[in-house]
Amino acid sequence: MIADAAAGTINAVVSNGDHEFVSMILFQLLLVFFTAKAVGYVFARFKQPVVVGELLTGVIMGPYVLNILQLNEPNMHLTFEVIAEAAVIVLLFLIGLETKISDMTKVGWRSFWVAAAGVFFPFLFGYLYMKYTGNNDLRSMFMGAVMVATSVGITARILKELDFLSADVSRIILGAAVIDDILGLVVLSVLSGAAESHKISAGVIAVTFGVIIVFVFLFTLGGVHVTKKYGYQIGKLKLRNAPIIAASVVCFTYAMVASKIGLAAIVGAFMAGVVMSERESEFKVKEKIEVIDDLIGVFFFTIMGAKVNIHAFMDPAVLGAGLALTLLAFGGKFIGCALPVMKMGVKKASFIGMGMVPRGEVGIIIAAYALSKGVIDDKLYGVAILMVLITTFVPPFFLQPMIKAMKKDKH
Amino acid sequence: MIADAAAGTINAVVSNGDHEFVSMILFQLLLVFFTAKAVGYVFARFKQPVVVGELLTGVIMGPYVLNILQLNEPNMHLTFEVIAEAAVIVLLFLIGLETKISDMTKVGWRSFWVAAAGVFFPFLFGYLYMKYTGNNDLRSMFMGAVMVATSVGITARILKELDFLSADVSRIILGAAVIDDILGLVVLSVLSGAAESHKISAGVIAVTFGVIIVFVFLFTLGGVHVTKKYGYQIGKLKLRNAPIIAASVVCFTYAMVASKIGLAAIVGAFMAGVVMSERESEFKVKEKIEVIDDLIGVFFFTIMGAKVNIHAFMDPAVLGAGLALTLLAFGGKFIGCALPVMKMGVKKASFIGMGMVPRGEVGIIIAAYALSKGVIDDKLYGVAILMVLITTFVPPFFLQPMIKAMKKDKH
Repeated sequence: MIADAAAGTINAVVSNGDHEFVSMILFQLLLVFFTAKAVGYVFARFKQPVVVGELLTGVIMGPYVLNILQLNEPNMHLTFEVIAEAAVIVLLFLIGLETKISDMTKVGWRSFWVAAAGVFFPFLFGYLYMKYTGNNDLRSMFMGAVMVATSVGITARILKELDFLSADVSRIILGAAVIDDILGLVVLSVLSGAAESHKISAGVIAVTFGVIIVFVFLFTLGGVHVTKKYGYQIGKLKLRNAPIIAASVVCFTYAMVASKIGLAAIVGAFMAGVVMSERESEFKVKEKIEVIDDLIGVFFFTIMGAKVNIHAFMDPAVLGAGLALTLLAFGGKFIGCALPVMKMGVKKASFIGMGMVPRGEVGIIIAAYALSKGVIDDKLYGVAILMVLITTFVPPFFLQPMIKAMKKDKH
Repeated sequence: MIADAAAGTINAVVSNGDHEFVSMILFQLLLVFFTAKAVGYVFARFKQPVVVGELLTGVIMGPYVLNILQLNEPNMHLTFEVIAEAAVIVLLFLIGLETKISDMTKVGWRSFWVAAAGVFFPFLFGYLYMKYTGNNDLRSMFMGAVMVATSVGITARILKELDFLSADVSRIILGAAVIDDILGLVVLSVLSGAAESHKISAGVIAVTFGVIIVFVFLFTLGGVHVTKKYGYQIGKLKLRNAPIIAASVVCFTYAMVASKIGLAAIVGAFMAGVVMSERESEFKVKEKIEVIDDLIGVFFFTIMGAKVNIHAFMDPAVLGAGLALTLLAFGGKFIGCALPVMKMGVKKASFIGMGMVPRGEVGIIIAAYALSKGVIDDKLYGVAILMVLITTFVPPFFLQPMIKAMKKDKH
């Protein structure tokens, strides 16, 4: 039915059928929004992270359990994906807004080493486990790559919920997560070149690094410069909510540029937030972005939860391999990220390690890519999802008491 | 490719393909947002209605001219529809928020007669023209029905832009537009019964009226009562932005209930706004909803513009019939709506008549339905679109000087 639309003629039949889908999608979003907000509220009252409540709501309401949120419905799938992507872009922009470039450079090198070691260990552990259990190089490297990227969204939300974003350890985590995300995408770029040509090319690595360096320097530092020098012009526009409209354009432009040059859109959104934070004292867009985040942020976490196929874990072999790789992903990241900052003390180092453990969308994207190229099969994809799931669900339960302990130490 | 997802298995290939579409959709939305905001800003500087600028942006960027906003792309179509629908729901909720139930009852009967005569005349004119040019009863009635419903969004936006929402004539227009929308949907319900069974049934008319009465009384008056009595509880929730979250739930719940019982979702959203306005002095959600409207409202108008296939009007027969029916739709609505309020003076009566002229989504929905049932053909659908287009584009140019003249009279 929808194919008729492609003809480019007047497509009333489609519009009519569409109207039902539009109504269904909005209805599902409404149910998910209300339920996730209610569950999140209960979690908050019992001092648990809201994000875990929202992820669980997604799992339960998703297509593999209740199928209220019909994520796998062909006609609806893409709309949910767009909403999730927009939501995570807004979330990362908001986090960027709370990050000053001066704070970033302060933690720069520590963040870099945390990120680098936090990428190296899980990759190594994953690769070795796969090789040891009889897989070829490419497949082993891909499963290692799946275990690499920290999902900053979940940890950042907890840091935000507990009002801990300004702590030095939080700055290191956020900085490291950005670098880590970039490293994860470098690994993906390199491996995707390898998957296409079946050999790893030095050219691909060089180009990828070049692109990243240009983007980070030109766009972030350039953006900060332009905003500092010309940003006051926005305040002079005779347009209601001009600063927030400008902020949205900057945020999505950075996200799209990042996406077009092969980085994750959320990396761009974060950088846009860093850029716009230069004018925050003047425009105060943060509190308005928070309203938008409070309204659509919940969709990112519920949709990520809804993607979890819990039935895949009924197969004991999948479950066994999944638990083994999850343990390696967990331990590799924890050790890798804690080691470079041991000087700060065990408490802080282990907090940084734990904060970097959650995996998310980048891991899922890499696994999906590997599956599409036939490098891994359905079961290994299930393993990757289990790894993402457990590394996401477990750390919040540790992070919360750790933050409280650190806060006590301060007083 | 997307059909694989229906299998319910792990669908990585889809996710990978999806990611490209997600990126493309967000990129198109960004371009449209930026362009429409810039064009709207220029229109505002030249004292023209912003909404006309946004509609024109949609026509130019839409699939029939530049195809930057790829509305007819099968994979993207539905996502744009969902965004447009969410945007118009937010817009009508915002308009509802500025409408007190006491104001509504004050203009009640005048609005009712404006709406009733404004529905009767265009329907009669359309029906007679079609009959005279040799069409059967059902087709003639459907084309009459297409000409019935005023699109309150466009006039309301102009009233809002010129800070004229609180004037008595504006209240009458808004009240009449709601009743008119309901009457338009009654006509559609009745005719859809006729299209299915090929006779007009008294049962369908009775059920439709019953549903509307229950909805309006139970949900609006009941909602106002509940909000007045228990609304303060929302303020006590320990949840950031609790009032705006509650408002969103109420807004979309009303919209969905309205949609489920066969009314337009926007009718429900407007009523939800009326209900929530009871607590506005306490919660101040309006300014936050305005932020959301400033960010997504532009998508409703650009997407409506993008639906216009300007190539259909190359056929002189289509253009001729289109212009004739447009003239009748314009004149019928203007006369019908001005007549019942002639006591208020010619200036005010003609303003009300002109304010009710714009047609929009309801007309398009009825035309699309008629096409899907084979009652009208492609060309008559093109005619309906031309009618919606001209009745939408022309009135703003009259409304603006009229408002200024009335404002002068006051001083």
